[in-house]
Amino acid sequence: MINKNYSALKESYLFSTVARKQREFASENPSLKIYKMSIGDVTLPLSKEVVEAMNKAVAEMGVKETFRGYGDEQGYRFLRESIKEHYRSYNVELDEKEIFVSDGAKSDLGNFTELFSADATVLVPDPVYPVYVDSNMMAGRRIKYIKADKTNSFLPMPSEDDAADIIYLCSPNNPTGAVYGRKELGKWVDFALAHGSVILFDAAYEFFIDGDLPHSIFEIEGAKECAVEFCSFSKTAGFTGVRCGYTVVPEKLVRDGVSLNKMWLRRQTTKFNGVSYIVQRGAAAVFADGGKGAKETIRYYKENAGIITRALDSLGVFYTGGSNSPYVFFECPNGMDSWEFFDLALKRAQVVGTPGAGFGENGKKFFRLTAFSDRETTMIATERLGNLIADVKKG
Amino acid sequence: MINKNYSALKESYLFSTVARKQREFASENPSLKIYKMSIGDVTLPLSKEVVEAMNKAVAEMGVKETFRGYGDEQGYRFLRESIKEHYRSYNVELDEKEIFVSDGAKSDLGNFTELFSADATVLVPDPVYPVYVDSNMMAGRRIKYIKADKTNSFLPMPSEDDAADIIYLCSPNNPTGAVYGRKELGKWVDFALAHGSVILFDAAYEFFIDGDLPHSIFEIEGAKECAVEFCSFSKTAGFTGVRCGYTVVPEKLVRDGVSLNKMWLRRQTTKFNGVSYIVQRGAAAVFADGGKGAKETIRYYKENAGIITRALDSLGVFYTGGSNSPYVFFECPNGMDSWEFFDLALKRAQVVGTPGAGFGENGKKFFRLTAFSDRETTMIATERLGNLIADVKKG
Repeated sequence: MINKNYSALKESYLFSTVARKQREFASENPSLKIYKMSIGDVTLPLSKEVVEAMNKAVAEMGVKETFRGYGDEQGYRFLRESIKEHYRSYNVELDEKEIFVSDGAKSDLGNFTELFSADATVLVPDPVYPVYVDSNMMAGRRIKYIKADKTNSFLPMPSEDDAADIIYLCSPNNPTGAVYGRKELGKWVDFALAHGSVILFDAAYEFFIDGDLPHSIFEIEGAKECAVEFCSFSKTAGFTGVRCGYTVVPEKLVRDGVSLNKMWLRRQTTKFNGVSYIVQRGAAAVFADGGKGAKETIRYYKENAGIITRALDSLGVFYTGGSNSPYVFFECPNGMDSWEFFDLALKRAQVVGTPGAGFGENGKKFFRLTAFSDRETTMIATERLGNLIADVKKG
Repeated sequence: MINKNYSALKESYLFSTVARKQREFASENPSLKIYKMSIGDVTLPLSKEVVEAMNKAVAEMGVKETFRGYGDEQGYRFLRESIKEHYRSYNVELDEKEIFVSDGAKSDLGNFTELFSADATVLVPDPVYPVYVDSNMMAGRRIKYIKADKTNSFLPMPSEDDAADIIYLCSPNNPTGAVYGRKELGKWVDFALAHGSVILFDAAYEFFIDGDLPHSIFEIEGAKECAVEFCSFSKTAGFTGVRCGYTVVPEKLVRDGVSLNKMWLRRQTTKFNGVSYIVQRGAAAVFADGGKGAKETIRYYKENAGIITRALDSLGVFYTGGSNSPYVFFECPNGMDSWEFFDLALKRAQVVGTPGAGFGENGKKFFRLTAFSDRETTMIATERLGNLIADVKKG
């Protein structure tokens, strides 16, 4: 009676192992300060506009005349309208029916796979955010990997061997911070169209892009026939503890004669009851004034990323990310294994990062730092890690 | 590649059909006021304590020192502690690890079935909340029905034919409002233990119980070895638009040698990112002072239920519910079909209720009213429906 696929999952989730090791070190060394540069959690508070909007919504909920009960499972119109406007700023035209508000990209990235059969094949870049793999393993789907490494700057391109029903792409990438250009993303779209694949595009970090790189896969011709996009306010506007995301399922996306938009609507209306009204009001305030408050916060994080990448540059360490992404993914010194480097960084520098091995085979000699800490932590952690790397290199 | 089970689902969800018919009637009859007694949505505002707690939480999120990012997927300790205390008031001792905070019972009732294999059999009372059936149909599980009707007062008891891997029970029941007594629930627990079944117990309406009836299945000896309980702040404290629930998975619940508590933790940490901090603060305030604010609101709704049941009593109409439940489930006059009565009630009395047929075969001659409207609507709707029923009876 039990779903046997769960037994194939690895015992513990990457971040919980990191957290456990950190906890154990702290309890053994109570006098040492630990510098957290690991889990992708934000540290700056919500912007003023968001706080104001949520305050107002809380007040409304306390008065009979303005109280709101169930909203549509797919989200309030006011929020879907502002998401639509946001896409318009990238020259992407969406219908409101194509936008589904959710409690976060993580939920939707996992739940969306329910629309596929258990024998659908899944292509996942390695290294990658572990949730893609685990969610599909839970359903017993066969997973194929495409290699991301130094030789392709962690931006793999498909070959005929990579044909699959479902293709996960994440750009700006977690954990590598690498970002696909228009031409490269166009090739993925063509590949998906040619093979009838559905691309599940994780755009959770799109707000970190500055240059002329695609924020949305729907900026690419043909993507509406082959892609679903997952996005989130978590990193855009510090909503990791507030919980709100959105998923775009184009009406043109049809497989086996069935509209995936209609299937997802059916899934959400059956197994979900929408996002908190208060949270949706906060989310709608994010895009007010062109996302001014959120952009300011992101500028701060990107300055942190610059501190890290400048230090790595001066040490001659290979890395990806850091410029259009909150993540910096660097090669461990002297070919060290990433968990080995994790333990060393914790012990010698009291810096907690994320071992690349947690994201897949090809990450096992890499290490992820995030730009989400405050300035002081970032500066101290970078200096300490820099000294450690220099020491290790000297041997 | 597509999950074919979706094609077996009925085209549209009960409440959306009700909403559509209501919308169409309103647009054809713009001058007529419609009295909504259908969807189980609340109408009274959040209590003062909840509003205050959420206000405080919103303010905290706007300040760096008190800002909170990701919380544990299973919920903040402060909320799980207060849920634990709430259970203690029913003489149920839980470990904090057995409590999982969610965005609502609907999500968890659907998602929990992922822990079972596709060939697990499911027993569902008929009539019942449609989500149980649809969630399992989406996974291709075989569904067996157990008949709830006038002869068993809509409280069916199991016989050997009803053996199944998964058993759904809802008490106080949606849609019938019927509540199992201790002895009856004990028989279900014994049945599940004898057959190795898992009972998925929906206790979303437990706060409406007054008398000596079980609020939780864990009040019953042996239930921790065979049951999971789903509960929600939606009806308890008007959280339908705020979104918060909780699921109790006992550590003693083991099937095929696997702990369902551990499986659910794995599922939630992989495909869920926890409930909004602000919402969790609001939820924790619900149980303050023994749930005083919530109890006051529920008293109001139950007075509404009394208005409905007294009218039905005087008309000699058979019904269940209304005393420990916000629902009243009554027999349509003269053996009328429930959708037929729905159309008639809308046309002649402008009252919208929910046709029992939407909940299953055995509901097709019954009609559900809810006590969640305001007093005036309830009084007028009851009077209008009463007159209509009297008219229909006269022929």
